[in-house]
Amino acid sequence: MDEFDLIRRYFDRDGEMPGVAVGVGDDGAVLTPDTAKQQIQVIDTLVEGVHFPPDTKAADIAYRAVAVNLSDIAAMGAYPRWMTLALTLSDSSEQWVAAFSSGLFDAADKYKVALVGGDTTSGPIVTVTVTITGEVETGAALLRSGAKVGDAIFVTGTLGDAAAGLDLLQRGEPDEFLAQRFLRPAPRITTGRALVGKANSAIDISDGLAGDLKKLLTASGVGGEIDIDKLPLSESLRERFTPDEQQQLALCGGDDYELCFTAAREAVKDIPGIAAIGAVRESTGLICRRNGEIVEVDDSGYRHFQ
Amino acid sequence: MDEFDLIRRYFDRDGEMPGVAVGVGDDGAVLTPDTAKQQIQVIDTLVEGVHFPPDTKAADIAYRAVAVNLSDIAAMGAYPRWMTLALTLSDSSEQWVAAFSSGLFDAADKYKVALVGGDTTSGPIVTVTVTITGEVETGAALLRSGAKVGDAIFVTGTLGDAAAGLDLLQRGEPDEFLAQRFLRPAPRITTGRALVGKANSAIDISDGLAGDLKKLLTASGVGGEIDIDKLPLSESLRERFTPDEQQQLALCGGDDYELCFTAAREAVKDIPGIAAIGAVRESTGLICRRNGEIVEVDDSGYRHFQ
Repeated sequence: MDEFDLIRRYFDRDGEMPGVAVGVGDDGAVLTPDTAKQQIQVIDTLVEGVHFPPDTKAADIAYRAVAVNLSDIAAMGAYPRWMTLALTLSDSSEQWVAAFSSGLFDAADKYKVALVGGDTTSGPIVTVTVTITGEVETGAALLRSGAKVGDAIFVTGTLGDAAAGLDLLQRGEPDEFLAQRFLRPAPRITTGRALVGKANSAIDISDGLAGDLKKLLTASGVGGEIDIDKLPLSESLRERFTPDEQQQLALCGGDDYELCFTAAREAVKDIPGIAAIGAVRESTGLICRRNGEIVEVDDSGYRHFQ
Repeated sequence: MDEFDLIRRYFDRDGEMPGVAVGVGDDGAVLTPDTAKQQIQVIDTLVEGVHFPPDTKAADIAYRAVAVNLSDIAAMGAYPRWMTLALTLSDSSEQWVAAFSSGLFDAADKYKVALVGGDTTSGPIVTVTVTITGEVETGAALLRSGAKVGDAIFVTGTLGDAAAGLDLLQRGEPDEFLAQRFLRPAPRITTGRALVGKANSAIDISDGLAGDLKKLLTASGVGGEIDIDKLPLSESLRERFTPDEQQQLALCGGDDYELCFTAAREAVKDIPGIAAIGAVRESTGLICRRNGEIVEVDDSGYRHFQ
């Protein structure tokens, strides 16, 4: 199966897509941006054996590659429009490519992003790079750098599930809910959109809450304090892990692809699915408390799957 | 050196860039497109050991990764604006990353494209994916599908040099000019821009003239005939290779990143650096003639470096 056939068969779908004058199949895609908007550009790579175990299903790899990029779009307060794919195949069968394509379009259809171009190459391992272009009202993008002293710190969803799911998968004791949280992250596009004009700063949690929140606070030139008891945890996480493990996973487990943001409490009181976990302070650094006591957090260790 | 430091040190340059509200360092870049334009999106991956020999210098790998994408932008008649980079490093040293960065910005500065985001990961081999967003006047993008019966067929520059340069590099008998043609392709942005409104179709020559011209003719639903004696060849190619080798390299050697386009002769008579090599015909397929005789061309074999 040569590259041309491969693309035509699995990645070139008929049908008009909004803003796409020319899609897959020419030297480049021709796109018509919305004139009243700014664009958000994101890019993320998943490497076999680094970001996912080699036996991960093709459909899940593809879904995840799209979802992690969508999560960056969500963290900027944007909605997704167009996507490109660079796929390096190893000895992948046509069946593998077909499954990959179906997972890719599952995510693309669910979040309304059009695949407009790509490149397939061969190499020793599977490597997937996805880029997404989103749009957001001019001047309204949510940045890491806007946190204000006095803001509350919020997160979406529940924390630690993805790292927990991966851990159980690797131990051969998978939990269905937690595994899905790792394999099929749910990018918070709807929440991100709702935060535009309301949140002062945002980041997506890909490397663990503690590390990513620190990046946000540093970019904003402020500090913060969070209450570990307030971290939202799933039933499954509570059932399968000890309290200490729960804390470590929720603070430092990666791959959750939830949002962490800061805002005045009043501004976001009507937004569902969010939890206040702390506050932005003037003195720099992140302080984590449990039952009022300061807890030292080692967030240096998380390196996704490896 | 962690990812954060690496990006800040080698890929995040200070200074305002046109249309870039937020560049490297947030979850995504924030860009302000030109409202009167359409956008061109391209993506291309270079895999170590597939697209370049493992001992290729880091600066050349980076330059080439940018240049091959710019060539797609040129083939669409667009000018480049923004670029993202997904870089998978193996056991690359900081020195290697520094050299890579310098090659990347050599190309970026020369062709005025701004690096606005990226992702660095680790893997068993170096893999480089670059995406470029370009702009072109609305409705004016040069497509593969616009060739008209009666158009002349043109190419830019000289053909076969890159494959010749690679061949000599691999044989340990490098030719400076030809090696540079492989390592540092010259994307034809200026010519591509000059062709807007004048050429009827265009493609860039990445897999060899014969194969790429066939793609253009097929996309246009027409055929074509070229005269091998008219293919523009460099002095160096003529000196180092036999006439039969010259023909094979010029027709089927990949990696030239010249443009092949079709246009009425009159429309492009003032454009420098182009050569008419044939004509578009009604009957499908590509016919190659030499001294008036039809020559069978085997263009199935070219697989870049491997």
